[in-house]
Amino acid sequence: MHFQLTHTDKSSRARCGILHTAHGSVSTPVFMPVGTQATVKALSPEVMERSGVEMILGNAYHLYLRPGCALIRRAGGLHRFMNWPRPILTDSGGYQVFSLALLRRITDEGVWFQSHIDGSAHFLNPEKVLEIQRDLGSDVCMVLDECSPYPCSREEARAAVERTLGWARASRQVQMPAAQLVFGIVQGSTFEELRVQCARELAAMDFPGYAVGGVSVGEPAELIYKTVAMTVPLLPENKPRYIMGMGTPEDILESVAGGADMFDCIIPTRYARTGVAFTHNGKINLRNAVHTEDLSPVDRECDCYCCAHFSRAYVRHLIYAKEILGAQLLSLHNVHFYTAMMRQVREAIAADRFIVFKTDFLNRYRTALPGAETDAADGE
Amino acid sequence: MHFQLTHTDKSSRARCGILHTAHGSVSTPVFMPVGTQATVKALSPEVMERSGVEMILGNAYHLYLRPGCALIRRAGGLHRFMNWPRPILTDSGGYQVFSLALLRRITDEGVWFQSHIDGSAHFLNPEKVLEIQRDLGSDVCMVLDECSPYPCSREEARAAVERTLGWARASRQVQMPAAQLVFGIVQGSTFEELRVQCARELAAMDFPGYAVGGVSVGEPAELIYKTVAMTVPLLPENKPRYIMGMGTPEDILESVAGGADMFDCIIPTRYARTGVAFTHNGKINLRNAVHTEDLSPVDRECDCYCCAHFSRAYVRHLIYAKEILGAQLLSLHNVHFYTAMMRQVREAIAADRFIVFKTDFLNRYRTALPGAETDAADGE
Repeated sequence: MHFQLTHTDKSSRARCGILHTAHGSVSTPVFMPVGTQATVKALSPEVMERSGVEMILGNAYHLYLRPGCALIRRAGGLHRFMNWPRPILTDSGGYQVFSLALLRRITDEGVWFQSHIDGSAHFLNPEKVLEIQRDLGSDVCMVLDECSPYPCSREEARAAVERTLGWARASRQVQMPAAQLVFGIVQGSTFEELRVQCARELAAMDFPGYAVGGVSVGEPAELIYKTVAMTVPLLPENKPRYIMGMGTPEDILESVAGGADMFDCIIPTRYARTGVAFTHNGKINLRNAVHTEDLSPVDRECDCYCCAHFSRAYVRHLIYAKEILGAQLLSLHNVHFYTAMMRQVREAIAADRFIVFKTDFLNRYRTALPGAETDAADGE
Repeated sequence: MHFQLTHTDKSSRARCGILHTAHGSVSTPVFMPVGTQATVKALSPEVMERSGVEMILGNAYHLYLRPGCALIRRAGGLHRFMNWPRPILTDSGGYQVFSLALLRRITDEGVWFQSHIDGSAHFLNPEKVLEIQRDLGSDVCMVLDECSPYPCSREEARAAVERTLGWARASRQVQMPAAQLVFGIVQGSTFEELRVQCARELAAMDFPGYAVGGVSVGEPAELIYKTVAMTVPLLPENKPRYIMGMGTPEDILESVAGGADMFDCIIPTRYARTGVAFTHNGKINLRNAVHTEDLSPVDRECDCYCCAHFSRAYVRHLIYAKEILGAQLLSLHNVHFYTAMMRQVREAIAADRFIVFKTDFLNRYRTALPGAETDAADGE
């Protein structure tokens, strides 16, 4: 078995588990920083390992276009190419074709699109995206799916589910190395009966793991929670459950309570590059004037390299002076914050006190202190 | 004594020494990476320490304008503000006033100028620049000087020397903490009699160290060498000799042979951000197509983190994808290359074989291999 469920919280559906991969075991719930182009932006592998990152996400679409799978295969796979020894999950590229590619034409056979880099024409189908991920050597590979935008009509969402299911069936026929796990993806937009249908049919295909796709695509937070809450219980209990592209600390804690195991999001690294830091007392924006003379660390309770050695005033100076080190230090801190939060999440579940932990954490996190980030950056 | 001359090469004027500062001792000849805005671009202090960097350069002009000396003083000085425990030399800002400031008016009293950041008006004089560097807590402080552009007339150069000498006299009257060494700066453009006059008068003022200023300001390489070669021997033998803003590996080896001890330059970090790497076989530009599939390290003979773990193809991918990690890895490598070269320089001098070392090093360095950087980047 690739996934062991080790404990379920007595007060919620939150659960602890272990995902076994060819590059080591990962404790769940886990947050995977996003390394789209064979690097988690502004972080070296050694810095990530020291921050306790257990698993990262790569992107088949981007890597297929640049630098190309042939090179990465020759380099010995994505792990060796980017010097990341721990597990990697790769997204199939379905979402990127829909969000980034210039022109695209979707048929039941697959997707024609033009590269967002140079306009070159490409065709991807369920078999091809798994072949790409085989070349990359991903520990977890995602199937090709059709991600509905928000909002979309019930009919459009139904058509995307049908296509997603057809592609999932085709994916299941692809012979992959035993060490590479392939996860199915549930679509269905915000429509419960479509989510139910998609989840049931995918469950019957017996994938080693399941993802909830098509959330955090622009819908309001309540709808995200509602969709995740309705979909997660539909997924097989003995398989890992991954919420794609999620999210804020609030989103993640909410979804863990509902029984989700895996998360990825650009938020910690993207926010870092704009000067926003996560702290136990909420997000702060170091561009705010209140931090100008603040010689305290970004987060007093954090033991990362940034918080151990540098002040808010210094990091603010770096951000204003457009110094690369500012992005490095804040990315490191934000990823460390997420990783540390997930460790606390797992400890709380193991001790059957997850709901208490979540309440306490969010009470403090939502108490805005001076310099808090109050703009609508979450919606970016 | 702040400076001990420990050995002079039997075959040249090259010399080894130790500069003692409040933040430790530095073996000379030494190369100081440039940390203009309280950070060596794209490098964390821990990465620099691991690369064997002994001393860095900061810039009084930039730090005075942003984030301001009051904040840095409150933070406990520049070392604590930027978490750099080893020695720091700060440039006075004279060069920046001439090269960066918007409007400026120079009188014998000092310099009026407008900030290049926000246009605000400022006045600096010899006393004020030392006061700024006292606030910063610099181990080595530079006096205010007037740096002649290239080309300039003999009369202009003479006037700049007179003003530089007047300001040096005023600087010598400033009471500085004993732990902070103040260096004088020789100007005189490319005119030998002006260099001689300036060096003699400064020597009589008995500064703890001397710099050659006004070189590498746009003149051809032969004139740089000629000016350094004529000026260095004029400087007191028992004091450290610092060539400001120099240079390429070739420049540095040439000047070491002439008896210079200290160097700083933006080249290793600036080139890194454009994809240019220093190797024992010369500079290479990773943007060149020849590196696309090259899975060998940037420099086979280098033991830095970049060369130990990543390939030319990977770093090239990062540069093309505009990933910050590309700048981080190449900056680290280039600084490591310089630092390792200086260590070899010191060993060669101590073994009385500096000229042999220099000849061998440059023979290999000048052998262009495929992918070599052949453009005029040196002149940037």
